[in-house]
Amino acid sequence: MKLLIVNGPNLNMVGHRAGNIYGTTTFDEFLPKLKQKFPQVEIELFQSNVEGELINVIQVAPQSYDAVIINAGGYTHTSVALGDAVADAAARGLYMIEVHISSILAREDFRHLSFIAPHVKGSIMGFGLESYTLAVYACLNENYG
Amino acid sequence: MKLLIVNGPNLNMVGHRAGNIYGTTTFDEFLPKLKQKFPQVEIELFQSNVEGELINVIQVAPQSYDAVIINAGGYTHTSVALGDAVADAAARGLYMIEVHISSILAREDFRHLSFIAPHVKGSIMGFGLESYTLAVYACLNENYG
Amino acid sequence: MKLLIVNGPNLNMVGHRAGNIYGTTTFDEFLPKLKQKFPQVEIELFQSNVEGELINVIQVAPQSYDAVIINAGGYTHTSVALGDAVADAAARGLYMIEVHISSILAREDFRHLSFIAPHVKGSIMGFGLESYTLAVYACLNENYG
Amino acid sequence: MKLLIVNGPNLNMVGHRAGNIYGTTTFDEFLPKLKQKFPQVEIELFQSNVEGELINVIQVAPQSYDAVIINAGGYTHTSVALGDAVADAAARGLYMIEVHISSILAREDFRHLSFIAPHVKGSIMGFGLESYTLAVYACLNENYG
Amino acid sequence: MKLLIVNGPNLNMVGHRAGNIYGTTTFDEFLPKLKQKFPQVEIELFQSNVEGELINVIQVAPQSYDAVIINAGGYTHTSVALGDAVADAAARGLYMIEVHISSILAREDFRHLSFIAPHVKGSIMGFGLESYTLAVYACLNENYG
Amino acid sequence: MKLLIVNGPNLNMVGHRAGNIYGTTTFDEFLPKLKQKFPQVEIELFQSNVEGELINVIQVAPQSYDAVIINAGGYTHTSVALGDAVADAAARGLYMIEVHISSILAREDFRHLSFIAPHVKGSIMGFGLESYTLAVYACLNENYG
Amino acid sequence: MKLLIVNGPNLNMVGHRAGNIYGTTTFDEFLPKLKQKFPQVEIELFQSNVEGELINVIQVAPQSYDAVIINAGGYTHTSVALGDAVADAAARGLYMIEVHISSILAREDFRHLSFIAPHVKGSIMGFGLESYTLAVYACLNENYG
Amino acid sequence: MKLLIVNGPNLNMVGHRAGNIYGTTTFDEFLPKLKQKFPQVEIELFQSNVEGELINVIQVAPQSYDAVIINAGGYTHTSVALGDAVADAAARGLYMIEVHISSILAREDFRHLSFIAPHVKGSIMGFGLESYTLAVYACLNENYG
Amino acid sequence: MKLLIVNGPNLNMVGHRAGNIYGTTTFDEFLPKLKQKFPQVEIELFQSNVEGELINVIQVAPQSYDAVIINAGGYTHTSVALGDAVADAAARGLYMIEVHISSILAREDFRHLSFIAPHVKGSIMGFGLESYTLAVYACLNENYG
Amino acid sequence: MKLLIVNGPNLNMVGHRAGNIYGTTTFDEFLPKLKQKFPQVEIELFQSNVEGELINVIQVAPQSYDAVIINAGGYTHTSVALGDAVADAAARGLYMIEVHISSILAREDFRHLSFIAPHVKGSIMGFGLESYTLAVYACLNENYG
Amino acid sequence: MKLLIVNGPNLNMVGHRAGNIYGTTTFDEFLPKLKQKFPQVEIELFQSNVEGELINVIQVAPQSYDAVIINAGGYTHTSVALGDAVADAAARGLYMIEVHISSILAREDFRHLSFIAPHVKGSIMGFGLESYTLAVYACLNENYG
Amino acid sequence: MKLLIVNGPNLNMVGHRAGNIYGTTTFDEFLPKLKQKFPQVEIELFQSNVEGELINVIQVAPQSYDAVIINAGGYTHTSVALGDAVADAAARGLYMIEVHISSILAREDFRHLSFIAPHVKGSIMGFGLESYTLAVYACLNENYG
Repeated sequence: MKLLIVNGPNLNMVGHRAGNIYGTTTFDEFLPKLKQKFPQVEIELFQSNVEGELINVIQVAPQSYDAVIINAGGYTHTSVALGDAVADAAARGLYMIEVHISSILAREDFRHLSFIAPHVKGSIMGFGLESYTLAVYACLNENYG
Repeated sequence: MKLLIVNGPNLNMVGHRAGNIYGTTTFDEFLPKLKQKFPQVEIELFQSNVEGELINVIQVAPQSYDAVIINAGGYTHTSVALGDAVADAAARGLYMIEVHISSILAREDFRHLSFIAPHVKGSIMGFGLESYTLAVYACLNENYG
Repeated sequence: MKLLIVNGPNLNMVGHRAGNIYGTTTFDEFLPKLKQKFPQVEIELFQSNVEGELINVIQVAPQSYDAVIINAGGYTHTSVALGDAVADAAARGLYMIEVHISSILAREDFRHLSFIAPHVKGSIMGFGLESYTLAVYACLNENYG
Repeated sequence: MKLLIVNGPNLNMVGHRAGNIYGTTTFDEFLPKLKQKFPQVEIELFQSNVEGELINVIQVAPQSYDAVIINAGGYTHTSVALGDAVADAAARGLYMIEVHISSILAREDFRHLSFIAPHVKGSIMGFGLESYTLAVYACLNENYG
Repeated sequence: MKLLIVNGPNLNMVGHRAGNIYGTTTFDEFLPKLKQKFPQVEIELFQSNVEGELINVIQVAPQSYDAVIINAGGYTHTSVALGDAVADAAARGLYMIEVHISSILAREDFRHLSFIAPHVKGSIMGFGLESYTLAVYACLNENYG
Repeated sequence: MKLLIVNGPNLNMVGHRAGNIYGTTTFDEFLPKLKQKFPQVEIELFQSNVEGELINVIQVAPQSYDAVIINAGGYTHTSVALGDAVADAAARGLYMIEVHISSILAREDFRHLSFIAPHVKGSIMGFGLESYTLAVYACLNENYG
Repeated sequence: MKLLIVNGPNLNMVGHRAGNIYGTTTFDEFLPKLKQKFPQVEIELFQSNVEGELINVIQVAPQSYDAVIINAGGYTHTSVALGDAVADAAARGLYMIEVHISSILAREDFRHLSFIAPHVKGSIMGFGLESYTLAVYACLNENYG
Repeated sequence: MKLLIVNGPNLNMVGHRAGNIYGTTTFDEFLPKLKQKFPQVEIELFQSNVEGELINVIQVAPQSYDAVIINAGGYTHTSVALGDAVADAAARGLYMIEVHISSILAREDFRHLSFIAPHVKGSIMGFGLESYTLAVYACLNENYG
Repeated sequence: MKLLIVNGPNLNMVGHRAGNIYGTTTFDEFLPKLKQKFPQVEIELFQSNVEGELINVIQVAPQSYDAVIINAGGYTHTSVALGDAVADAAARGLYMIEVHISSILAREDFRHLSFIAPHVKGSIMGFGLESYTLAVYACLNENYG
Repeated sequence: MKLLIVNGPNLNMVGHRAGNIYGTTTFDEFLPKLKQKFPQVEIELFQSNVEGELINVIQVAPQSYDAVIINAGGYTHTSVALGDAVADAAARGLYMIEVHISSILAREDFRHLSFIAPHVKGSIMGFGLESYTLAVYACLNENYG
Repeated sequence: MKLLIVNGPNLNMVGHRAGNIYGTTTFDEFLPKLKQKFPQVEIELFQSNVEGELINVIQVAPQSYDAVIINAGGYTHTSVALGDAVADAAARGLYMIEVHISSILAREDFRHLSFIAPHVKGSIMGFGLESYTLAVYACLNENYG
Repeated sequence: MKLLIVNGPNLNMVGHRAGNIYGTTTFDEFLPKLKQKFPQVEIELFQSNVEGELINVIQVAPQSYDAVIINAGGYTHTSVALGDAVADAAARGLYMIEVHISSILAREDFRHLSFIAPHVKGSIMGFGLESYTLAVYACLNENYG
């Protein structure tokens, strides 16, 4: 299984400052452990702060990946355009999961809305970086379970 | 690890009619498989259609269980009282996870709100009954990972 | 035809105090007259103030009844869970009608919403206890008309 | 009993095209059957697509009819003026019932509002053309029951 | 001065039933008194329950009248089209005043809005039929004062 | 007839700067003309920018005046307290009229609301200072007409 | 191709007064030019200020015309009934296009809503009377393109 | 005087965990002190987490008690049904007071609404368990003061 | 204990007209009785209709009083400034209670909001002038109970 | 005439998957046909998924093009920044038209809003790729018609 | 340059209690330092908790001052009347700047609105008392810069 | 002090067309003057129309600059992602100020919201390019004042 993790704005900063709600582990520390845990999955990571670059990547993902785990960060709540790209990729058969490090339902009102959620298989939120781990379990379960 | 699954209204009907958005597997069929998959976890199930009985169970859960997986069904979106009970149990140290079979963020507007989410560790939604499986993974990960 | 009347909260109080908008006839006085008017229909009554007990009854109704007349009282406007149960029963083929003694569209704003209406055949409101009589006519008309 | 059925905009089209939510029976086919079913009631029909003509008819109805069954169609949700006319006729003692072929509570949000409902005896909706039949039962019941 | 009074829906019913908020005097009784009070003004009356006929009259009024007093009744709160016609007539130089028998600001919320008010010289409301008398004073004052 | 004009905030500035929507006539120039026009009415003026002083004056007005014409200026739209005072004075039998120089229904949204209107006889707005003249006509009409 | 242009309220006034946002050309001047530009299209015009007459015409249009260009004027934003008629005609196969002289999305908030748009092929707005020209192009393109 | 205290969901947990906004005293510790303070009042307590059981108790309370002090907990803000029961009991002459341990007006927005308040004598909130003490004073004052 | 009662707009009028929702007792009649009932409390009264004077008094109250009972009248619902003053005085240690003669939760929607409530110990409403009596009990209870 | 088509996010995907609401023709297939149809127009295409790159292009367009046809895709509904760029370019004299393949007024509520529409000449929507053809007609008409 | 600082409600309390969001410096300590920093500016201070007195001062300020720095405190968010006074003074040529000690955009929702901002040159907020210093810089810059 | 000015979308166009609300001075003309006025500050400028590039720069700014002045242009009102980046940089100790050329509180409603304001020291708006000058004063004052 080829799996792409798409990380949106500010997720490159996770763990780069003292333990806040996003934890103290950086993605650079987390990713090797994730790969180690799932040797049967080929995991790649793409991160960008640019909304359009996330769209670019989502558009071509169905050709190269079996599944995408997407954390759209702040664009989750505002990007009709990214939601449209996700909907289109899903319609072309891509298996997609939405993750969030913290629970968007537990934070400010403007974060309770997701333009991603209606188009993906499911959403996992609130488990810190372990949200990604659970998402990989979900991918495996769905595709090879 | 002792784990309680708390299922709210209408979840006793899952799988009892032709394959709709909730799938065709009943909980009676699913639960043994779940137990088999996690032999190290002692899993119990409580289901009720009565809001107050769900509150009763949540109130005493911290004394008997290490973790609770809660799917509050339709009460998720309307029950301040159940949310208060969950908040109180969490404040007493109970590890709790919210699950939904379908994604509440992908359905009617009145389902986008959760009185449970702000008080639990995290939320998993949209994976059918496998949302429960992922929640058990999350419990194991957090407590013994 | 076997018909179940499901009465929600406070409907056991109808007629028990001086003539207000709900009238002066009690259900105990009304039901025998209703049965007498429709000897060809086997009419049963279930009343509960407990939301979950109403759900319990709705869930099993498709197995025992040809039709259900439901007056969900105050839960009409607040119960996503009861609406889900009604939707499920309707999807399993149960013929259901919503009634109200007074017109919910003519009272406070918070009563203008019905979680029951979208899932039943039709709604009859404002005719006092005669709303039930009309509903029985509707059942007969639809099933044997 | 003299009874007037007042039909608003587009109700002259009911049944004139392939079976949609309004059914396949035209009013021209339905009305004779209705009259046959209630030989003791003198039933007349007025239909107009013009809001003001509906008001004209409602204004004089109390002088000529014992009861009015009104289906204001799309004006139900927008016409303060028609609602005022209905309120005035009701205040002059006219017995009025609101009907709808489909359930306005089960359709788009902008149809959940009725400017007619607060001023009439009751509302019957969702039973197709049989909503009218039930309304005649209601008139008979109230006036001669 | 040639003056046209334009009365909208249900204003032909004023005074035709027992003293309610609109009073007990009919317009037929009131108009001669009004003409008598202002012999120097040529007063004509147009009433219609049809929104479009009110628009028709407003469109041609600038050619024949020095001033228009308009009571749009229920259309006051809902008619973008009538408001557009009034705006257009005002832009062509017609002196227009809005009147209401009762105060629209003192009744239901949906009456607090006027599509007429933004386009006329001023609004007079709440004085019963005397609102019209005051409006004639205003016309005289403005044009010959 | 003893009549008090109560002017709220900024109405002392009317006419004090180049002709804007409030016109170029000051109240000092207008009042003598108003008195001259109505010699049979004893007219007094009270103006204050202080909300509470307006309340003070309204509270005692029923003892000394037959009628009050009130232009509450900006407090019209925000003062529950002034509205309560007006309601109380009206309940004690004081004849009150609300006036505005410009039409509050034709300006910003936050001016469309009046806490005064529900409690007074009627409202006159949009006629510049002549709104006051019309209000005096209304007072005379009502009390001695 | 037989084409009907349906013009709603106040569109008979276009061009009848000094150049405002609707331009200085009248429809009487524009229509011959339009016919000249499209000799292959039989173009007829219907205009009414009466909502119900517009509905009348739309209801019978499928029997006589290949296409309808509708500018519902102020009724665009308020008429559920006209929207229902358009939806019904479209469902019977009539090719319909919505036009507006100015852009409804660029004017007051209450004009941003269209009850026509969801039921027609497309909408063209903002090009003055040339919006009609473009609509004829669209009709030709679709039907004979 | 016979007095019933009706406690809603989660109020059985008051004082059962470390001092939070609800304090550290349990109801079991508080009630004897309350009874001691008011020896002339016969005080009983009913607590349930089930909305319908609260309704059951309120319905029969007028027959057995002179007064009811109700703290509906989370149902305060969501239960139309409980509000209806309280309204009905009050209409049958029962003296009722609403209490809250913390001030619902000082917490989350969704707690600012009370379906109980419109139907009871008064509301007391924010004084911890002493809200109940004050309510007993109020009962005594009203009935025997 | 030194206690200040701060009464806002229109509370000087309580009891001064025929028994309405505020009762028939004036504050001048009530205050001596209140003092008599609590001889151990030194009670002073300040009333003003001026928002700013209420703020003036609240600002200095912590220096001279042990407790303040405030009924802000109509300013309760509109005065951010008074709410800020109360918050500041409370932060400086002043014990404050909000009272209302009628229940603000049982009246118009615009009265359901309190800018005072979030900053005081608690709120007591609906008991007529006895709301003040209960507030004194609360003060005594808290400080010397 | 030099014309630039500016296509926003996901418009590069049009036609790339099975016929959905956006049709089965790709832009690569459509553009040559469009150029062929309008040989007198020099048409260029710019597409980007990046909001800022669209702004970059709009900013310099007035220097190089006579007209711009813009389909801002999902940014239509969310981008204040792009709307500002369009407003600025229009203010510098650039002739701009907004197009949409489907009708934004006929889809989800969040698509009913356009930050582009208020600043361009007009909007054309719902005609599939032919919306672009109509826009070129409009450009020609306006500039050389 | 003659400059008036107008401070609204509660700003006389700044610094009078332990360091909160408004800081620990009082205005009496701050003003001399401000004067010292800008010896070329004649700075006067007016503070009142009374809304109307602030209006009084603003009304006459254009005659005596070159510039006004206004911090309307809580009235910023609620006072239409004060906003009108500021608008009028600005229209008469007075240079006005709005300041806030904390950022109103960073606090409760009800503070995000300013009735002052639309009528002044600019707004400075969030810099503590240094907001005033920056405002004086702005005045100097604008008038003598 | 090293200071970075971050300019968002369309701010590269300031002054590039005839004097509108943003003035006639370009940033290229303004920046040298700003540097000259503050020789002790090392000022750099970054401008981008791309939301993500602004985020990129904000993320690394804490490592290289003592302070950031940010004018996020249209992204101010829509970018949760940029607001998150600013919040994160502020949490890492970066001194940040928000500026706007015009006052966002004085323009369209959709500009009244700032996702930047809650996370920065303060906001300065409405002074044209001098807003930047004032922001530099603020930086100096805070850090070296």
